Amino acid sequence: RINPDRLWESLMDMARIGPGVAGGNNRQTLTDEDAEGRRLFQSWCEAAGLEMGLDEMGTMFARREGEEPDLDPVYIGSHLDTQPTGGKFDGVLGVLGGLEVVRTLNDLGIRTRRPIVLSNWTNEEGTRFAPAMLASGVFAGVHTRDFAYDRRDAQGRRFGDELERIGWKGAEPVGERRIHAFFELHIEQGPILEDEGVEIGVVTHGQGLKWLEVTFTGRESHTGSTPMYKRRNAGLGMARLTELVHEVAMDYQPDAVGAIGHVEVYPNSRNIIPGRVVCTVDIRSPDKAVLEEMETRVRLGAETIAEALAIECAIASVGQFDPVTFDPGCVDTVRRAALRLGYSHRDIVSGAGHDACWISRVAPTAMIMCPCVDGLSHNEAEDITPQWAAAGTDVLFHAVVETAEI
Amino acid sequence: RINPDRLWESLMDMARIGPGVAGGNNRQTLTDEDAEGRRLFQSWCEAAGLEMGLDEMGTMFARREGEEPDLDPVYIGSHLDTQPTGGKFDGVLGVLGGLEVVRTLNDLGIRTRRPIVLSNWTNEEGTRFAPAMLASGVFAGVHTRDFAYDRRDAQGRRFGDELERIGWKGAEPVGERRIHAFFELHIEQGPILEDEGVEIGVVTHGQGLKWLEVTFTGRESHTGSTPMYKRRNAGLGMARLTELVHEVAMDYQPDAVGAIGHVEVYPNSRNIIPGRVVCTVDIRSPDKAVLEEMETRVRLGAETIAEALAIECAIASVGQFDPVTFDPGCVDTVRRAALRLGYSHRDIVSGAGHDACWISRVAPTAMIMCPCVDGLSHNEAEDITPQWAAAGTDVLFHAVVETAEI
Ligand SMILES: NC(=O)NCCC(=O)O
Ligand SMILES: NC(=O)NCCC(=O)O
Repeated sequence: RINPDRLWESLMDMARIGPGVAGGNNRQTLTDEDAEGRRLFQSWCEAAGLEMGLDEMGTMFARREGEEPDLDPVYIGSHLDTQPTGGKFDGVLGVLGGLEVVRTLNDLGIRTRRPIVLSNWTNEEGTRFAPAMLASGVFAGVHTRDFAYDRRDAQGRRFGDELERIGWKGAEPVGERRIHAFFELHIEQGPILEDEGVEIGVVTHGQGLKWLEVTFTGRESHTGSTPMYKRRNAGLGMARLTELVHEVAMDYQPDAVGAIGHVEVYPNSRNIIPGRVVCTVDIRSPDKAVLEEMETRVRLGAETIAEALAIECAIASVGQFDPVTFDPGCVDTVRRAALRLGYSHRDIVSGAGHDACWISRVAPTAMIMCPCVDGLSHNEAEDITPQWAAAGTDVLFHAVVETAEI
Repeated sequence: RINPDRLWESLMDMARIGPGVAGGNNRQTLTDEDAEGRRLFQSWCEAAGLEMGLDEMGTMFARREGEEPDLDPVYIGSHLDTQPTGGKFDGVLGVLGGLEVVRTLNDLGIRTRRPIVLSNWTNEEGTRFAPAMLASGVFAGVHTRDFAYDRRDAQGRRFGDELERIGWKGAEPVGERRIHAFFELHIEQGPILEDEGVEIGVVTHGQGLKWLEVTFTGRESHTGSTPMYKRRNAGLGMARLTELVHEVAMDYQPDAVGAIGHVEVYPNSRNIIPGRVVCTVDIRSPDKAVLEEMETRVRLGAETIAEALAIECAIASVGQFDPVTFDPGCVDTVRRAALRLGYSHRDIVSGAGHDACWISRVAPTAMIMCPCVDGLSHNEAEDITPQWAAAGTDVLFHAVVETAEI
């Protein structure tokens, strides 16, 4: 078993970097806070005797040598970046849980046959630079490195420039590592495990996602003196689309979710009819056919809405992944570990996207989930208990050790 | 008749200060650009032999002495501040049209019995600091000076501090001036005059307005892993309110307008259900009873919307004025001036709020409108012809001269 106190202490130490405004974190990707978090993680890895690699996407790879260095390593990992108003555990648990696995192996003097590599994937959250899971996506060959470098944040800063600016751009080409198996521990970010009082989620699938950036263009004009019949209100277009996305998701219950979380209104003046609105639709389903139907309805709906309001509508895809089926062998390893340790567990579908979703395209992959309070995530109030963190990390430890072989 | 070329040249000179991004202006109140615009206006006033007064709200009063200095002056004025994406004529025409009246009197060597005072009212637009028509409202006793000083912009900066910072806070107590009559020339900002091919709008009434700042508070959570039934989506609340405001306005056609121009979504991340949205409802009607019914429906509707979504809703009034009836005598003076000059004219109701609406509470007041292209205002593409500007200013000239007496 791992050391629950040490794990918790590291989680709390990391949470001190990039504090939020309500007890959580704002350690968005490629900010100074991200750099500081990386340095802390690096110092811990060095203290644990690991050797750090860094690829051109800034993904960190900390290697614990195996008895047979030429065998493909077992990878553990997740991400240290957070939402602008994020929690202390989303992503962080998977990285520091991995560190705790290595520390426990060190304590026990266990040498595995295969090397073990801890990874911290750059820009998992996707808030500052869309799409989410960017570095793991490049690793898996879904995006090119240069596509990633050219992503821009809301201030127009390039991903590639910001990566260099914070000093974490490595020289290693992306995606050339061979991975024997990949395990990611993550909080559920939903309510199922807590509601059912189950300690471990054995993640069999991940739902698919589409991010559609919709730009409505109407005409700025005076809210007071423009007659109703002359208005070309881009804000009304956004409002109708927000409702439509909700309706479409409700139609496929419980196999779909949908919302608009990001809205920019121009010029955003109380007495100007919005001339332009940019917003991003987030729709998801574990069923690819459902997701595609949803997308079609949203795209057609946006056009119908625009037509009725005499405004224009442009739609760009800014993120997407298909539903994922994780590797049955790795999933089984996780399930057996939970069973062996006596933790209650159930199979679960991940509602969120994870680096493991992309890595599963290039290596056998599985995920372990632990409950979080009230299913709440992407909220500074996100919380877990030290016991939940420990149980998930114990399962990670056993799954990794079994796969890396002693 | 006034000098159309000189008027147009001054309009174009002022438009060079605080250029926008699309041919218009961004000279928002109490910015450095506002200060620069004021300095240019001041230099023109000095060249025309006027004496500048400045009150504690930063309103500029440039006086042309009358033959009988003790008589109450005739005031002319409007505002030099603009929307963030504003036009070159909204407000500016009324101030520089007034300047052209004085310049023409100087050319002709005419001395009026009553003094004439040109005024540039601070913060008419209300975008940076709500409410609109702030300085004229303080002048008319609708707001206290300290209420105005405490208004804050989106960055949290205080009106009073910004007024001092730009160096245009005067020592003169606000509202102590006696006004014999007030005339404001303004572009229509709506389509009626142009559609009907009429040169002059004789403004008999102004419609009333309510600005309601609505804050919906839900709960930030993950767009992917939060089941639909667990969402408390403040963005959906804003969307439904946007639709409701539109519907309510449509129900009272043609005697009402309504829209939401200002929306802030928190935390505004693609994969976070909005936990909070602040938006401002703008509803207007020339009929006070209709306006009050609209407000009731919007307030009740916002609460019903919030309840259905398990979110909270708080409503604050951030601006309001009752419908205005302008002074029949002054209105008649304007109508007679148009007739005398041979300009086509019609009575019209102002769709927008104006400084004249507040001043009409403390002095006999009237407004003159000229057409604008396609009824477009609060848009950088706002446009008028030099002929329209000249016609409006001619009418202003005659109305002022008649009222100030030769
Ligand atoms: N796990 C997580 O929050 N990932 C961010 C990408 C997503 O929105 O699912
Ligand atoms: N004329 C004008 O645009 N005034 C601003 C106040 C309003 O929104 O009516």
